[in-house]
Amino acid sequence: MRVNGEPYRTIWVDEDSWSIRIIDQTRLPWSWHVPRLTRMAEAAEAIATMRVRGAPLIGATAAYGLALALREDPSDWGLEEARDQLLGARPTAVNLRWGLDQITGAVTGLAPGDRAAAAYERAGELADSEVATCRRIGEEGLPLLEALGRERPGNEPVQILTHCNAGWLACVDWGTALAPVYQAHDRGLSVHVWVPETRPRNQGAALTVWELSQHGVPVTLIADNAAGHLLGRGRVDLCLVGTDRTTREGDVVNKIGTYPKALAAQANGVPFYVALPGSTVDWEVASGAEVPIEERDSREVTHISGLTERGEASELALVPAGTPAANPAFDVTPAGLVTGLVTERGICEASGSGLAELYPEQAG
Amino acid sequence: MRVNGEPYRTIWVDEDSWSIRIIDQTRLPWSWHVPRLTRMAEAAEAIATMRVRGAPLIGATAAYGLALALREDPSDWGLEEARDQLLGARPTAVNLRWGLDQITGAVTGLAPGDRAAAAYERAGELADSEVATCRRIGEEGLPLLEALGRERPGNEPVQILTHCNAGWLACVDWGTALAPVYQAHDRGLSVHVWVPETRPRNQGAALTVWELSQHGVPVTLIADNAAGHLLGRGRVDLCLVGTDRTTREGDVVNKIGTYPKALAAQANGVPFYVALPGSTVDWEVASGAEVPIEERDSREVTHISGLTERGEASELALVPAGTPAANPAFDVTPAGLVTGLVTERGICEASGSGLAELYPEQAG
Repeated sequence: MRVNGEPYRTIWVDEDSWSIRIIDQTRLPWSWHVPRLTRMAEAAEAIATMRVRGAPLIGATAAYGLALALREDPSDWGLEEARDQLLGARPTAVNLRWGLDQITGAVTGLAPGDRAAAAYERAGELADSEVATCRRIGEEGLPLLEALGRERPGNEPVQILTHCNAGWLACVDWGTALAPVYQAHDRGLSVHVWVPETRPRNQGAALTVWELSQHGVPVTLIADNAAGHLLGRGRVDLCLVGTDRTTREGDVVNKIGTYPKALAAQANGVPFYVALPGSTVDWEVASGAEVPIEERDSREVTHISGLTERGEASELALVPAGTPAANPAFDVTPAGLVTGLVTERGICEASGSGLAELYPEQAG
Repeated sequence: MRVNGEPYRTIWVDEDSWSIRIIDQTRLPWSWHVPRLTRMAEAAEAIATMRVRGAPLIGATAAYGLALALREDPSDWGLEEARDQLLGARPTAVNLRWGLDQITGAVTGLAPGDRAAAAYERAGELADSEVATCRRIGEEGLPLLEALGRERPGNEPVQILTHCNAGWLACVDWGTALAPVYQAHDRGLSVHVWVPETRPRNQGAALTVWELSQHGVPVTLIADNAAGHLLGRGRVDLCLVGTDRTTREGDVVNKIGTYPKALAAQANGVPFYVALPGSTVDWEVASGAEVPIEERDSREVTHISGLTERGEASELALVPAGTPAANPAFDVTPAGLVTGLVTERGICEASGSGLAELYPEQAG
């Protein structure tokens, strides 16, 4: 997508054909910094400190990180050592292991001298494949927005409510929930996105507002609390969110605060769609009630980051030290509240049969 | 209620029997400051800058402000002049005018020399009457908590979810939604309150956490986004919130973010009660859909206040300058989502007939 008018991905091979560039997302929305990764350890650091985030991007960064490692030491021992270090950068990220497995599979059995080139090639394929999947999600979701656009008088924008950041910054390009929005905008359909700030980590305010605005899509930031009111007063035509994990029966695990928005959408007859690559469906789990919800550091609730008047990044306490705070990171939106799942293979009902029809090889 | 172990109201006559003390709520939760008001202009300033807030407390402060004015100039002209200045301090506060009317009524016709004493007496009666109303709300709501307490095994706390600040800081004492909680706690019933921070102004984090903790009631701060998850996972026994205005059919206008919590409560079979003095029922309006919702300064969404590491009050920007933001201040919870209205006259159904039964003289 575009930044300052130029098209970008979140990760790419630099002009020197070997070093890797990423966007430092910890500095957004305040400053634009595209660090150059020249060693595996730098890739691991970028993952660990969340300069890169979002499952697909973490996977791609790990893959390129292994390619960087093999450039320096293509031995079996070097491969093993680099894998371990990258895996330790964010142990719970499923895509990280997947990205590493892909590279390992591509180079195992090759002569050491051929390994780095093969790793770069496979990493590039991975990144391209992530982009293709997200583009497909966008194409599948686009007709939903086009249909709403046709119903609008004049050129009034289609009003979309999203949550958190399910945009291109979390992927390699396009995003999931925002992919249909970018495609609609690029085709001249007038759209406007309500962006909840997404407390406690404020990914909506910091990332979604930034990426949509940079690409030219009109946005309005709101407190998470305001979403119900906007839905109640007919100010939203369609909800579009992403997901971290969808159960095989269609329950949606996503950023905390998704569930109340889905309830408000249903109560007001507004369609609520969830966009996802099929790879994030958890075929092992039937009901969202079975999914353990990660409890994160309470400091995310009791403190907040932003920019001082003098333009310096800073942090404030919102409550006195020692205030007890709970910080569940995700909630579960039951399948019954979800109008449909937008995948790279099409849109299906959020149900076991809906998913099985699109992914018969998985549902087995 | 208690602060540092000592009982307080939010406004009181000082030991000198004439100057007025208030709690400077703009400094909470960071510092405890009880300024002395010696002149009407200081009372007007305290109202205008929100050192005092909440309808009942604003009314009481205006009443005492008029008493202070009459101490200096008890003439008709002095009375008129002081009324105008106090009214201008927060023109939209209905209780402000009401408090002034009460004092004006009490002193009109009296000799100038008798007016100040009569004004103090009437202001004291007003404050006492606010306290009595809130105490009654507490007594009416208490059995709800006691019944839940009896169902709990051992001494496990009754789990309450509130929103914003509907506690004693918004009133003269006790509060509305929190009055039953304080009474339960004082009688030895184990209670625990989940307090949503209540973006964008964070009254939950800044005021509700503080006042409950000072009185010894256990609390846990959460992001507003987390309320749905807690309700979904059976972590809440009862929701108790306040209201700014209730329509005669029982629709509840309250701080933005109330409505989604009511939806999540209903979806999970958790009772959702709204506590209110009968004086806040708007008998002129039937449906909440007719109520215009105040749109406040977007700066409340784009900026946030807190304490720096060095202990200084400060403000941060959350998004780059110029980011569009919307800030509706209230939402409407339809009567159908409200289990009951807890008033000083008892608990009734949130409906026209329910309210008419408790307030037959109003429902006419």
